[in-house]
This record gives sequence, C-alpha cells and structure tokens, in this order.
Amino acid sequence: MKKRVFSGIRPTGRIHLGNYLGAVQNYVAMQDEFECIYCVVDIHALTTLEDTHLLKENVREMITDLLAAGLDPEKCALFVQSHVPEVTELFTLLGMVTPLSWLLRVPTFKEKVKQQPQNVNYGLVGYPVLMTADIVLYKAEVVPVGEDQLPHLELAREIVRRFNDHFGETFPEPKARMTTFPMVVGLDGREKMSKSLNNHIELAATPEETMKKVMGAVTDPARMRRADPGHPEVCNIYKLQQNFNPQVIDEIAEGCRSASRGCVECKKQLGASINEFLAPIRVRRIEIAKDQAYIDRVMKEGAEKARALARVTITEVKQRMGLL
Amino acid sequence: MKKRVFSGIRPTGRIHLGNYLGAVQNYVAMQDEFECIYCVVDIHALTTLEDTHLLKENVREMITDLLAAGLDPEKCALFVQSHVPEVTELFTLLGMVTPLSWLLRVPTFKEKVKQQPQNVNYGLVGYPVLMTADIVLYKAEVVPVGEDQLPHLELAREIVRRFNDHFGETFPEPKARMTTFPMVVGLDGREKMSKSLNNHIELAATPEETMKKVMGAVTDPARMRRADPGHPEVCNIYKLQQNFNPQVIDEIAEGCRSASRGCVECKKQLGASINEFLAPIRVRRIEIAKDQAYIDRVMKEGAEKARALARVTITEVKQRMGLL
Repeated sequence: MKKRVFSGIRPTGRIHLGNYLGAVQNYVAMQDEFECIYCVVDIHALTTLEDTHLLKENVREMITDLLAAGLDPEKCALFVQSHVPEVTELFTLLGMVTPLSWLLRVPTFKEKVKQQPQNVNYGLVGYPVLMTADIVLYKAEVVPVGEDQLPHLELAREIVRRFNDHFGETFPEPKARMTTFPMVVGLDGREKMSKSLNNHIELAATPEETMKKVMGAVTDPARMRRADPGHPEVCNIYKLQQNFNPQVIDEIAEGCRSASRGCVECKKQLGASINEFLAPIRVRRIEIAKDQAYIDRVMKEGAEKARALARVTITEVKQRMGLL
Repeated sequence: MKKRVFSGIRPTGRIHLGNYLGAVQNYVAMQDEFECIYCVVDIHALTTLEDTHLLKENVREMITDLLAAGLDPEKCALFVQSHVPEVTELFTLLGMVTPLSWLLRVPTFKEKVKQQPQNVNYGLVGYPVLMTADIVLYKAEVVPVGEDQLPHLELAREIVRRFNDHFGETFPEPKARMTTFPMVVGLDGREKMSKSLNNHIELAATPEETMKKVMGAVTDPARMRRADPGHPEVCNIYKLQQNFNPQVIDEIAEGCRSASRGCVECKKQLGASINEFLAPIRVRRIEIAKDQAYIDRVMKEGAEKARALARVTITEVKQRMGLL
C-alpha cells in the first residue's frame, strides 16, 4: 500500500522557478510513489494578509500552474483548503490539547511578530495548529518540507503525541521528507527567489521575458571584467545551470574559471535551456487556462475526494473527545 | 419583526435551581418576545475539561432539563454546538482579525490560567473568539448575560467592529440583556450555587432530596438560637423565599426579625414551595426522559434550523474575506 503524503501550498499566485524546483517538481515526482494530497492553503494566507482581494485569483493561478506543471487530478487529490471545512473543526479541537506556550516559542511566529507587529492575531499564533489539522485530517504519514518548515513539523508531531496520549491512538506521527533542492536563490544572487522581491521567473512568463530576466541576473560579483576568472561556486547562474544543463556542467565551470567563456554567453545558454524546459509546461498552461470550467471541476472533485477522508477522521476525533 | 437572541449554555449536566432562576427561567420567558437560538456549547466545555467521558451524557441531561423547564423546540432553536460545524469555520476566520493581546487580557482567561496552569491551551485563549462566532453566526442582536459575562460580550462587540471595518458591514453588534436574577447563592450561604460545590438543588431531584437539602441549608449565622432575632437581608433562605413565596414575603421577614418564626419552620415552607413549583417540571422531565428518540429528534431538528442560518452567514463571510 502506498504511503499518504500531504503538502500545503500557499496561494502566492503564479508559480515561479523557485517554487517549481524547490517543491512542485517534487510534488509531480511523488505522485506515482505515494498517495498524494495537495492542498492550496487559502485559510493560512489570511493569517498574514491585510488585503485579500487577490486571494481567489491567486488560488486559481496556482491551481492552473500546478496542473500545467504536471499534477494529475486522477493520481492525486488537488483542492483548496477552505473547500474542506472539516479542517476548521479539527483545528478547533486540536487547539484544546495544544499549550499556548508551545506556539509562542515557534521561530516563524516570533519572526512574524517582528514583521507585522500591528497584526499579531489569534489565527497567526495558531498557524502550526491549523497546519497540523491539515496533515492529520488525512492521517498523512509523510510531509515534504524544506528546512525552514522543520520546526512546524516537529510541533505537529508533538500535538499528535499529546492528542494520542490523551484520547487514544488516533493519528500517525507525520514524518518529514526533506526535499533535495531546498532553496533557489533569486536572480539578484542574494535572496531566496520570490515574487515579492521580483527576482523570479514565472513558469507562465514568455520566452522573451524569461531571457530578459536571466540576462539581467547578478553573477559572480568578483568577476568584474570579461577577462577575470570566475567562481562558479558563488554564482547563482551556475547553480541554475546545474539544474538545467547538468550534462555539460563541468565545461561550464571550467569555462568560467579560465575566463574562456563570458557571463553573457553563459546566461544566453541558461535562458535558452530554461525556455526549452518550460515550453511544454507553458503549452499546457495555455490549454488549461482556456478551460476555466475544467479548473472548477478539478477543485470540486479534489475537495470531494479530500472530504471523504476528512469526514471519517473528524467523526473518529469527535467520538474520542466525547462529542459524539 | 422579532429580534434574534442567542445564548450559549454550558453542558454541566442536570440543571439546578441556580441555573434555572439565573438563566433558564429567562430563556423560557424570552421565547415569545424574541426569535431565540439556544445552543448547548459542548466545544466550549473542552477548553477546561481534562476528562470528557461524561460530556455526551451531560449534554443530553441538559437538553432534557431545558425541555422540561419549558423550552419549546417549535418556538426556539435548541441544539448542540458541535452539530453546527460552521461555527468552527467562523471561529477560525474571526481569529484572523482578533489581536492576541485582546485575548490575553480577558479577566476570565487570567483566572483560568491560575486555576489550571497545567492546561493553558490555545483553545482556552480563543474562548471569546468562539463565543463571538456562536453569536454572530446567527447575526443575533441580543445576548442575555450575567454580570460576569459582560467583558466577553464587550470583546465580541470589538471583534465584530474590527471585522466590519476590515471587510464591510457584515454583523450587527450584539447587545447585552442583563438578567434580572443574576446570581443565586448556594445552600452553604456563601458561594454561587453550583454542582461542583454540592450546594445546589437539581430540578430533577426528588421532593425528599429537595426537602433534605433545604433543611440542611445555612441561614443567618448571627441567629444562633431560636429566640434570637434574625436578619433576612443576609439570609440565603430568605432570598429564595423572595422568589418562591413573594406573596407572603413581608410576613416572613417580620417573623424572622421578631423571632416569632424559626428557621426550621421557614425552611419547611420554602422546601414545600420549591417542590410545588418544580412538580410540573419534574413530571414533564420523566415523560421526556422516557422518549430518548424525541430528544434525538429535537437535537437534530434544532441543528438543521441553526445550520440553515449558519450556511448563509458563512457564505457571506467567505465572500467578504476573499475565499469565495
């Protein structure tokens, strides 16, 4: 029997290369090995958003990109968090066994308090409780995570242990599955690739936009002139080359170190490879975006699949807690 | 058009005279004047209960007593909180606009932290958010409260204002309706009447149990001997007499002050009056308890009535917050 995987995906809008290489590629690959449950977490987004008028559109763009990137609704459950209201029931109930002190010491919470001191709301404190509810509502055993998410997953495991101790063995303790490509640096060469920093390339960008962004990217800052030898190990373009041109990566490194090859040439090659790689995804995206009724159907059927599992769990939880 | 009233009732089990005089009597009276929504709040009970194995039974006893006391499922909606899962959706969403700081300074929260320092859970902090969700899920305008509940209602109003400011006018600000009989002192003459102190009389007690409890009650502690003059104003039995024998209350007070009448005589009179008053409630209770299928039906139909309102509200809230 296949193990069950859960992953929550924040609806930041269109997927960029950082999302793709860091997570989505992995989601696609896991579809055959695992029973995959992929949830676009729109309720989570409300913990930090002041302005929510783009949320619905962002969810739809995200789903469209996920389908284009290769998620197959026949193989996985792909749905939107708020379409499965059982998750809020479980969130409420898990809150009864989660000490406040555990939540207040979560590093990402402390960071958010600094980032948005004017909006430290109750939902924000409960972020890890809602994440735990997301996972255990489906009794998922495996959660693909980046390193930054590990403290949240450890907390989820603690909440599960506390619930099981109190009310009897109900949930499996979810295990982390570290992604092999945890962090993609943006085209600025400094920060994690992200939409808000505009150092990203969207899957849905045109080939021209893509090439232009790559050509403007920061490379090895020590290589001031064409004739200076480069240092591939500190170069962001080189990191992307490792992904998009692995078969010639030694020549690329050598050409950079010996200065026999310039950054412009290297970037052109990378831009072309990215465009080649994304071409089939972009074609599918255009097809999918034309059929909005299909996207609605995917979301609806995904939610139905998820709710069938969710209902069983929530009934068991209510019985164990003495509500049913 | 009748105004809508909401009240949440903690499932402490069988109703005692303190509950009845302090709240339930008022619930019965309001049924004609208002559109009443009465909810037995089993999820709230989980914020403080360590042991939940009696919860279901307590809910059923509570519903049985409420029906016996005169709540009419044809006139009001009487249901169990967890049977309307929309309340947890609204709780989750209202949490996004509720500052944590507001919750940490609630007096009852601080008190609970002292009472159960080992169990300061996330759900306990969110008690006023869940209470707000209870009220506004039905857009109730009026909430009958005792004095101790006023800070919670004020907080509910603040949460409503914050939501309305942020997402547009959605909920009416619920108004308090102070109950005229806010606190019934127990038979110990000191503490509020409550099951946990065993200073109470259950509606469902037998006449003999009732008489025995009344006869053992503390009266004016300064009246040591039968011949000593009494002080009705400090006597707990006198307070109950005001309720059960209002037509002869002046004679009772005079008899006490002049010592022409002893406490034993006074208690016998009170016990008889309580039994007389409770007799029809007790008869109804026995009838209702015989028909458990009827109780199930009341809970089911009550939840359906409540959910019809709840679904409309939750859809509106999700639209306003950008989820739908």
